[in-house]
Order: sequence, then structure tokens, then C-alpha cells
Amino acid sequence: MTAAEAALAFAERSPGTTRRRVVTWQDPLPSAAAGMELAGIDYMRALMAGELPPPPIAILFRMRPVEIAEGRAVFEGEPGEELYNPIGVVHGGYAATLLDSAMGCAVHATLPRGAAYTTLTLETKFVRPIARETGVVRAEAEVVHRGRRQATAEARLIDGDGKLLAHATSTCLIIGDA
Amino acid sequence: MTAAEAALAFAERSPGTTRRRVVTWQDPLPSAAAGMELAGIDYMRALMAGELPPPPIAILFRMRPVEIAEGRAVFEGEPGEELYNPIGVVHGGYAATLLDSAMGCAVHATLPRGAAYTTLTLETKFVRPIARETGVVRAEAEVVHRGRRQATAEARLIDGDGKLLAHATSTCLIIGDA
Amino acid sequence: MTAAEAALAFAERSPGTTRRRVVTWQDPLPSAAAGMELAGIDYMRALMAGELPPPPIAILFRMRPVEIAEGRAVFEGEPGEELYNPIGVVHGGYAATLLDSAMGCAVHATLPRGAAYTTLTLETKFVRPIARETGVVRAEAEVVHRGRRQATAEARLIDGDGKLLAHATSTCLIIGDA
Amino acid sequence: MTAAEAALAFAERSPGTTRRRVVTWQDPLPSAAAGMELAGIDYMRALMAGELPPPPIAILFRMRPVEIAEGRAVFEGEPGEELYNPIGVVHGGYAATLLDSAMGCAVHATLPRGAAYTTLTLETKFVRPIARETGVVRAEAEVVHRGRRQATAEARLIDGDGKLLAHATSTCLIIGDA
Repeated sequence: MTAAEAALAFAERSPGTTRRRVVTWQDPLPSAAAGMELAGIDYMRALMAGELPPPPIAILFRMRPVEIAEGRAVFEGEPGEELYNPIGVVHGGYAATLLDSAMGCAVHATLPRGAAYTTLTLETKFVRPIARETGVVRAEAEVVHRGRRQATAEARLIDGDGKLLAHATSTCLIIGDA
Repeated sequence: MTAAEAALAFAERSPGTTRRRVVTWQDPLPSAAAGMELAGIDYMRALMAGELPPPPIAILFRMRPVEIAEGRAVFEGEPGEELYNPIGVVHGGYAATLLDSAMGCAVHATLPRGAAYTTLTLETKFVRPIARETGVVRAEAEVVHRGRRQATAEARLIDGDGKLLAHATSTCLIIGDA
Repeated sequence: MTAAEAALAFAERSPGTTRRRVVTWQDPLPSAAAGMELAGIDYMRALMAGELPPPPIAILFRMRPVEIAEGRAVFEGEPGEELYNPIGVVHGGYAATLLDSAMGCAVHATLPRGAAYTTLTLETKFVRPIARETGVVRAEAEVVHRGRRQATAEARLIDGDGKLLAHATSTCLIIGDA
Repeated sequence: MTAAEAALAFAERSPGTTRRRVVTWQDPLPSAAAGMELAGIDYMRALMAGELPPPPIAILFRMRPVEIAEGRAVFEGEPGEELYNPIGVVHGGYAATLLDSAMGCAVHATLPRGAAYTTLTLETKFVRPIARETGVVRAEAEVVHRGRRQATAEARLIDGDGKLLAHATSTCLIIGDA
């Protein structure tokens, strides 16, 4: 029995405490293909402006870029109960995903048309729990080093009061003539 | 405009290429509270047996524990298109979440009733891309060190052919008399 | 045959290309014991002022603190040929050690008398090679999060022109009432 | 005043508690140049056999390779008092250096003649303190993933009783046709 099947079985037994969310997205491959024809920062901005459909993960995680510059990106999200783990708080994978998104975009925004990157490593540190009461969170990322073959980045995840929730670093491989 | 709103706007414009998924879950706090009355391994097994509703993240990510032992946990998942990132593959946060889930459970399964853990760090290395064609993936985690105040764990994510997709380590803080 | 024995054998064969360094230090335990009677920042300052003998590693690695404040520490060092690895540059362990020293001191300098810390994790990223021509390098560390049970820190290693050589993060466990 | 000058000043004041070690090494660049003409495993074996002088760091840290195979390397060392940090134990940089050495050699031993590697990241976890009483320690490293452009490795540092002292992972960039 998968988790989804188990969830439905519980939902049938206890409809009164069941929550439900509908997730709607577009095929992500046309956007990705369009992105390969653009400099990284232009692709990021087209996504941010809504000229291309948001990538599915952004919808699933209800997160979005709010600022993009060369070597810098900021994402916002509002973590919900559907992200909870077995110990009653938002899963650490949520912070990791937001921080990784912001760092990946910050690196991507340094790349000319024709170059690409792939994330090699992601190191996340969790300093405060995130709960459904936390509200809007903000992941601010900056490139620390941009070499010819590797880029490194760092990011912090803060809540609406500026309190630190998590922070992270990443190493990316640069592919192509960048 | 949030990502969800943008997605809906695109869905109205191009209903033919729109995908849709309904996610259903239960309030996670009763399960978490029940878990605090159990030894970690017993809580994990109750979740695995479907005696308690799955944590929401397991439903959202369509992942589930398939093996739990003291200091060891295995999760399976089947990554779908709703996890895609802007560069046309499954977001690295998916691998990070699966690996973190397996490592967290492996540590949790060493804890007696009354003790708890919190994840301090998660280091993930991505070695092959994950796509919607990848199929079922498997995260195998083991505790490397279980001290009085900290535990460390490692995990590997493999596909159906046993090919390595990502691997990770984690440091957890042990709280209480463990 | 140990490395030291092998080195001596080569030195006998080729005295003309042999280099030699004498390292002199004091028993480190009296200083460490003295440190436990002081607030962290006062211990660090006593070491920096030369009121206590430098820890042996500082002599072996020819590094020293040049700035200490609550949650911040700066170390300088001048890497020499005795740190070279088999591929003809300074071993990555040198950058790791300097960055770890600076981060450890930055955390230590937040601790009241009676509290202690131990480093749980050290994540180092190498971005440029270090050679005997590099000259004086500088590791600047700051505490990112100081909680009741954990502290996190980050640090950068730069050369005399301000060029980034390596950067790092660390998670420390806080012990005692801090 | 450098750490070395401070150490000498203390040595003059308290000759009775002063320790002294002479470190002797060869110019490392001829060995490194010789290594570039060999497959990685052959270079590692020539170093291990004493056909080439040991790299200086191996002498400074009194460590040496004791086993080399394709994708695997084991180092031994005997940490001494000259590695002590200000809090009265062996500096974490020692474990980081040994683990990094073993992982770097394990990766190097997969490289054909003409290819090279550089370490991008090193993540170290410290689980037990190391002291001058610890005796001989052993760092066992294995390559986890060897791709065309990156390699990842993991290593454990154990004492003579097999007790785990630290463990680590690393990501290396592969350069050239490998």
C-alpha cells in the first residue's frame, strides 16, 4: 500500500479531519527547452514574470522567485501542513528545497546562453523548526565563488521577523563555455 | 502572483497540456503526539503498518518506509513530473527529502520512549539526474554513530537497477535520556 | 617504514635538496585547564596576547589569531612547503584547519565561564589552490546561529589580495549552561 | 609576534616543559611532476614503496598510506601532542587531513595517466575526541561514485580498537580524459 492509498483509506474512515489540495501544473519540458535558448538571468526573469509556466516543484511547494540578479536570487514560500513530517513539524526537505532553489537560480543567473549547471552538493543546517504557523519564509542566496568549472553559493532561510530558520551552501558544476 | 495562481492562469489558457493531482491527508499532530508515547522503532512500525495515518510529506512526495530496524531504514518513492525543476529534471530537493527521511527514521528507530531527535545537518551529493522515467527509487539509510548527544547517519538513493542517484549524510541532536 | 623514517632516508641520500624545520612547543594541557576557568573570549584573548603559550597546532601550522570578538574570530597563517600534498600544492587539510580554528574560536568567544563546545561537523569548499607563493592568508569566521544547544558558523579564507581560496561552515554542540 | 616566536619565548622561560621536534623533507615538486607521468595508482604505489620521497604533509602529520587499490586507500597515523588545539585535544584539522588524504588517494587511484583531480568539497563529522593517548589511527576511504566529471568518496577514521573517531565525504572534480 502506497502512502497515497493509505491516506485515502484514512480519509474514508475519518472524512471530518481530512484535508485536500488540488495541484495543477504544465508539462515542464517546453519551458526547460525555452530556457536553454536564453541567458540564465533572462530565463529566470521570464519565469518570474509569468511569461513561462512555473516549474511544477514551485507549485507543489508553493514557492516562487521574488528577486533575481546576477549571482543573487530570493525565493518566498508559505509552508503548509501538507509538508509535515512524522514528528509534527515541516519536513527538513522543505527548507533544503527552498535553499537549493535559490542557490541554483543565483548560479544560473551568472550563466550565458549555451552554458548550463548541475548541482553537485547541497549542505543544509537546520536551526529552528518550521511549522504551519511560521507563515511566509524567505530564502536569500548569493554566489560565493564563480569559477570556470565550479560555482559555490550560500543561502539563508528566514521568517517574517527575520529570524534564521536554516542555512545552506552548495557546489555546482559549470558545463560549457561559461 | 503566487506560483499556484500563475499555474492556474496557464491552465485556463492551455487546458490540453494541464496536469492535475489531488493530495489528501490527515492532521499530522495526533500522530506526532501518539509517537511521543512510543519507542521510536514502534512508532515507525505503526506508521509503516498503516495503523496511523502517513505524515503529509509522505503523501505529497509519494514516498513510504519499506523497512525499519534499529539504526536502519529504507524508503521507496516514485518521483513524478510534479517534482520537476526549471531545468527539466526532478528537483534535487526530492532526493534530499527522501534521503533525510530515511536517515531521520534510522536515527529515530534507535530512541527509547521519551527521547527525541532533531536534525542539525543534511549533506546531499547528487550523482545522476532523476527524471519521470526513472521509476521507483530506494533510499537506504544506516546510523553510522549513535552517541549520547549526537547521532550521524548515511544514506544512498538508488534506482531499480541499483544505480546510484544521490547519497547523503546527516548529524542529529539527541534530546532527553537516550 | 613511517613517513618520517622515509624522509630521513631520502635526506641522507640527497642532503642538498633536504629542508628542515624545528618545531618547539609547550605541554598544552595547563593552558587548556586555565581556559576552563575563563569565559571563552577571555581565554582567546589571553592566548592572543601571549599570556599563555600558543596551542601546539598553531605552531605546527604557523597560524595565529589576530582578532577576537563575541561571535567573530580572524586567523592568519603563512603556508609553507612542509604542507605540500602529493599533487604539488598545499594540502586541503591546511585550509580546513585554519577555517575550523577561526570558526571554533568565534563560537568559543560566545561562551560564558563553565560552558564548553565541541565541533560536530566541518564542511570545507576549496575554490583556488594554495601554494608556497601564496603568502599570508586570512581566515575570517562569524557565528551564524548561536542557540542553547548548537551553534553554527561560517568562514572564508582569503589571500593578501582578498581573493577567495576556500570557505567553510561548521556545526558545534554547546555543553553546559550557555 | 607569530605563534612560532611566542613558542620560542615560552621555551626560553620554561625550558623544562618545552618539547621539540625536527621535521625533514624534500622539495615536493619533482615528485608531483613525476606523478603526472604515471597512472594515479602507480604514483600512489611508488610513494607507498618509498621510491619517491613522501609528500611533506605526510611527514609533518606523521601519516602514511598503507593500502592502495583502484577506488580505495587506507592511511595510518599516530597523532602527537604537537597537534593539540586550545581545548586540550587533537585539532579537528588532523582528522580532516587524514580523511581527505585517504579519499583523495582513493580517487587518484582511479585516474589514468594524463588525468588529474582537484578536491571541491570535504565534509567531516567528529564523533569522538582524539588525544595523545589514542595511538595509531586508520583512515579507510572508498570511492562512492566515479563519473566522467566528478567523483565522490567516503572515509572513516578508527582507532586501534576499531572505534569510530570521525567520518567524512568528499566531492572531487575530474580533469582531462578520464
